[in-house]
Amino acid sequence: MTEAFDAIDVIRDKRDGARLSDEKIDWVIDAYTRGVVAEEQMAALAMAIFLRGMDREEIARWTAAMIASGERMDFGSLSKDTTDKHSTGGVGDKITLPLAPLVASFGVAVPQLSGRGLGHTGGTLDKLESIPGWRADLGNEEMMAQLEDVGAVICAAGSGLAPADKKLYALRDVTGTVEAIPLIASSIMSKKIAEGTAALVLDVKTGAGAFMREESDARELARTMVDLGTDAGVRTVALLTDMSAPLGRMVGNALEVRESLDVLAGGGPADVVELTVALAREMLAAAGKDDVDVEAALADGRAMDTWKRMISAQGGDPDAPLPVASHTEEIRASADGVVTGLDALQVGVAGWRLGAGRSRPGEAVQAGAGVELHKVVGEKVAAGDVLATLHTDTPDRFGRALEAIDGAWTIESAASEQTRRIVLDRIA
Amino acid sequence: MTEAFDAIDVIRDKRDGARLSDEKIDWVIDAYTRGVVAEEQMAALAMAIFLRGMDREEIARWTAAMIASGERMDFGSLSKDTTDKHSTGGVGDKITLPLAPLVASFGVAVPQLSGRGLGHTGGTLDKLESIPGWRADLGNEEMMAQLEDVGAVICAAGSGLAPADKKLYALRDVTGTVEAIPLIASSIMSKKIAEGTAALVLDVKTGAGAFMREESDARELARTMVDLGTDAGVRTVALLTDMSAPLGRMVGNALEVRESLDVLAGGGPADVVELTVALAREMLAAAGKDDVDVEAALADGRAMDTWKRMISAQGGDPDAPLPVASHTEEIRASADGVVTGLDALQVGVAGWRLGAGRSRPGEAVQAGAGVELHKVVGEKVAAGDVLATLHTDTPDRFGRALEAIDGAWTIESAASEQTRRIVLDRIA
Repeated sequence: MTEAFDAIDVIRDKRDGARLSDEKIDWVIDAYTRGVVAEEQMAALAMAIFLRGMDREEIARWTAAMIASGERMDFGSLSKDTTDKHSTGGVGDKITLPLAPLVASFGVAVPQLSGRGLGHTGGTLDKLESIPGWRADLGNEEMMAQLEDVGAVICAAGSGLAPADKKLYALRDVTGTVEAIPLIASSIMSKKIAEGTAALVLDVKTGAGAFMREESDARELARTMVDLGTDAGVRTVALLTDMSAPLGRMVGNALEVRESLDVLAGGGPADVVELTVALAREMLAAAGKDDVDVEAALADGRAMDTWKRMISAQGGDPDAPLPVASHTEEIRASADGVVTGLDALQVGVAGWRLGAGRSRPGEAVQAGAGVELHKVVGEKVAAGDVLATLHTDTPDRFGRALEAIDGAWTIESAASEQTRRIVLDRIA
Repeated sequence: MTEAFDAIDVIRDKRDGARLSDEKIDWVIDAYTRGVVAEEQMAALAMAIFLRGMDREEIARWTAAMIASGERMDFGSLSKDTTDKHSTGGVGDKITLPLAPLVASFGVAVPQLSGRGLGHTGGTLDKLESIPGWRADLGNEEMMAQLEDVGAVICAAGSGLAPADKKLYALRDVTGTVEAIPLIASSIMSKKIAEGTAALVLDVKTGAGAFMREESDARELARTMVDLGTDAGVRTVALLTDMSAPLGRMVGNALEVRESLDVLAGGGPADVVELTVALAREMLAAAGKDDVDVEAALADGRAMDTWKRMISAQGGDPDAPLPVASHTEEIRASADGVVTGLDALQVGVAGWRLGAGRSRPGEAVQAGAGVELHKVVGEKVAAGDVLATLHTDTPDRFGRALEAIDGAWTIESAASEQTRRIVLDRIA
């Protein structure tokens, strides 16, 4: 077939600071999916987009073209409203685990198409796979039946949604073009819009452990994604949340499931509960339920009940004991004071090195590995107190994990105890 | 083997506007040559260099790393001084043909490792291959013997010089990263320095038919290359020359050989003679001969004699008739006046479409095809005068060639006759 454009013309437009026309965007995404635009050409274009940017209309068209590259799902046949959530990812971010059943316990459908971890941030599917028997891969009909019956589904995203994004994401990963806001926003939103949800709540994180370390970048990403969702007819709202320190006290696969169970049982760390409740309120409001008592569903066991049904429906045994790592090592404080900082990135890298994460796609992870934090931001500590316990099945990993986490705690003697603020802003 | 760096770290440095360290430059060029840095990674880096630039030290190191990727030649065993010339290329630029034998006729060695044409600019080897029997490929020993005996050699560059550049050039060609000054300068100079010449004269062209259309860009490129050569111990000087209009009256392979023969016979168009003489003076001065009468060698047949020996040494018959295209078509003026502009790019594209050039490497070219200009800048014209004759063996090409050349002549009724200025500046 004769091609409408040449990749070089598209690259040059963006390289020289011009807007990409709708026709060129449609063509380049389609031709890239077909393999007519080569990887090296898309790499050059991605770098040009990174350095030159895209305006709102370009990003919207780029996103639409990625959606058009694959299948679209449709939740219209369900008897319930659907509401979805996406987090840009952080250390100890297990929020999807308590959140999906909590929201579903109010009669709303919550489809959570999730991924696996890479590098220092964990993956929701890796966490749930520490539950004996649980499986991530569901067929489309199984997923729809579970949404109708249980309400909550957390499963692997099928490869049919936005295949252009899948290809582009892998390319960006090796070409230093991951952190471009137009590309991040269109990547996330193409999958969410193709998935067909009616409402979407975004948890956009900022701080040392987040993808977007600077708050201004996180805010721009949130604004870009809210605009994209709104333009596509999805009721979209974003919370800007703090990821300077890990969420909760557990970082690792089974460790984070355990902490999620504490939350579902009405307990758990204050920051995890606060964020879970805040996101649940937004998701329910977006689905038209803004007068419900979210905390009550945690306190009275309704959320836990939905969790157990969700896990069982996917082959898991919600009552089986969770895996525990065979070896532990403790880190102790060398001075008295109050923890005023706890570096999320350092904790994330330590957990990764202990075996909780992977360095390349397809690697196995350890279910029991990770970091258990005993002292977190705002808490008093005395010299000799245990700050954290490291868990792994392979004790030769302790050395590099200890290196990674060394100096992660900032302890100040004159500071007073404080409560951490999680939700920094709301963007609608 | 364990790699010293990761390509992503190098890409990120440049993407974020940092200087690339010497170690990272050495590694990335070497690893790219070895295939460890992938094409898509180098494409992203090339675009980052395009948009972020490189400073003088970075360009010098980048050039040195490309030289180190391959062989180096050595003309030290010759009994003569060597002096070389490089042109950034233009329409009707046949200067190498008369220039190499002219300079060699003064007892200097002139190795001209040349290329083939791509797109609207012709290739020196394509032009010479219109001479029956002439061959472009010489072994290293043949080349050295011819330099010692005849003095002038125009032949294909071996693949052993700067293989990293060869790979990178092909990549830049498909990724919209050709026009970056640091990459152009290092590409040209890596080959010239690896070739081992003692002196180098650069013909950097500017205007509609040049690679660098803007004079400020051409000047920056010239300055960058002169610095690179000087830093590498090569006596380097650049002339900034006009390429707004074609050089001479002939554009095409055999057509340009014919015009070169006119120059070697002491005639030829004034602009071609002016540039040939100016470059010859610079090349001879760089080789320590600054008191010679260059014009005399054209007038008295010494340059022509060296030409014939050069062509014969490479199997060509200097007295054989040159190929002539089977079909011609004339373009006529529609008004009276003086030619005040003649668009080099349009003429070049017309010649290409007539069959003188190729669209992809390896395509055959027509020896006789091209454009013969009867009216050039500064000349008076009357309505009905023939402006140009188009030549081709494939008359179905006339249509698209006529489209390309339509409007190439600017004819003003009130203007007076003028002489074109070719050499705009000298940069040393």
